[in-house]
Amino acid sequence: MTEKKRTTIILFSGDYDKAMAAYIIANGAAAYDHEVTIFHTFWGLNALRKDEHVPTKKGFMEKMFAKMMPRGADRMGLSNMNFAGFGPKLIKDVMKKHQAVPLPELINMAQEQDVKLVACTMTMDLLGLQQEELLDDIEYAGVAAYLADAEEGNVNLFV
Amino acid sequence: MTEKKRTTIILFSGDYDKAMAAYIIANGAAAYDHEVTIFHTFWGLNALRKDEHVPTKKGFMEKMFAKMMPRGADRMGLSNMNFAGFGPKLIKDVMKKHQAVPLPELINMAQEQDVKLVACTMTMDLLGLQQEELLDDIEYAGVAAYLADAEEGNVNLFV
Amino acid sequence: MTEKKRTTIILFSGDYDKAMAAYIIANGAAAYDHEVTIFHTFWGLNALRKDEHVPTKKGFMEKMFAKMMPRGADRMGLSNMNFAGFGPKLIKDVMKKHQAVPLPELINMAQEQDVKLVACTMTMDLLGLQQEELLDDIEYAGVAAYLADAEEGNVNLFV
Repeated sequence: MTEKKRTTIILFSGDYDKAMAAYIIANGAAAYDHEVTIFHTFWGLNALRKDEHVPTKKGFMEKMFAKMMPRGADRMGLSNMNFAGFGPKLIKDVMKKHQAVPLPELINMAQEQDVKLVACTMTMDLLGLQQEELLDDIEYAGVAAYLADAEEGNVNLFV
Repeated sequence: MTEKKRTTIILFSGDYDKAMAAYIIANGAAAYDHEVTIFHTFWGLNALRKDEHVPTKKGFMEKMFAKMMPRGADRMGLSNMNFAGFGPKLIKDVMKKHQAVPLPELINMAQEQDVKLVACTMTMDLLGLQQEELLDDIEYAGVAAYLADAEEGNVNLFV
Repeated sequence: MTEKKRTTIILFSGDYDKAMAAYIIANGAAAYDHEVTIFHTFWGLNALRKDEHVPTKKGFMEKMFAKMMPRGADRMGLSNMNFAGFGPKLIKDVMKKHQAVPLPELINMAQEQDVKLVACTMTMDLLGLQQEELLDDIEYAGVAAYLADAEEGNVNLFV
């Protein structure tokens, strides 16, 4: 019996295109029978936000952050050629034309393939994000859990 | 007989400085006898574009993308202090003064050292890039080929 | 006797938030008894600058670079929501409120935990940074030294 290969990805970035890259690699690795973890930290947490407004009790600064950050994968901007928000529309049109899978569906696929989606509790706290605002069936952990996975990883990436 | 070490780099970024970092690591690893792959995806594909105009048949959106993206390594911008296009000139002047190797030559060196340069076919399709527009003697593959290399890799990076 | 696990991080980015992520991972790995190296290159070198002005002899372009780049960890901008320099203040306020450790202290902690902090000599040369301008007790090396560490690494990241 051989042990399963393991892929871990830290998704730090809140860019649509970078998150797409991360989720394409994750879904590919899961299809090749790797154990896969995506550890979402800082702006990468936005990919896990629900797209509807969730009422929460927050301080002023946390409310400000929550307002300024995109609510969910579909609202994220591009790392390049964002053109004041026009870029993502352009990319999504091109993706539709080429039948590429949009980010929210890539995230669904990952969950169906048992990719472990983790939200970094320390940065959730910093950015004032609460568990009710994030997708269901994800895990909550810190850097220690990430390292425990990554130190046995074959493919470890920071995106 | 010991097996060769292996380095794989995903070049996602279209920034001159990040591509330089990727190619310096790749050339270094090749010099230390690693098997090296650079997998170019999204904006990183621009590093592989030929610098002359190549006539192709494209749809409207693909033409727009092709126009807006830099044609080849020498035309890429900086991730930092780009100053509306002035930054790359500044960096290149400093590099000349310090006899640092410019990016297009780093890419040549990599090809001479048998670094495997791969263009991601899925994102080529998305961005409307065709094989005639990219450098000669590169390979074309998808995420499965990347994973096959990376899961045996000693040094795997996402740039 | 089992060998120590090893974590290596290339800090390319000059963003406060990315450097924080790098140093949190590094400190975590050191706490779990990894041998840890952070290799600072390009804009990541700014995290190692002393915050006071250090008189040096430099050419014109090197002086310009030195002036434009942030002097030390505490002056670095954000990768996202930087708001023309207002973002870092906002993040630091939120961090204080949540008792998160600011970047300069994360760097101190790393040094106390024997994380090896390396400055890339090739990019120091390019950006005109001199050893007197950087923190004490760091090492100076090039890509060969990085690769020697990373090829034995369990967790290798490019930030």
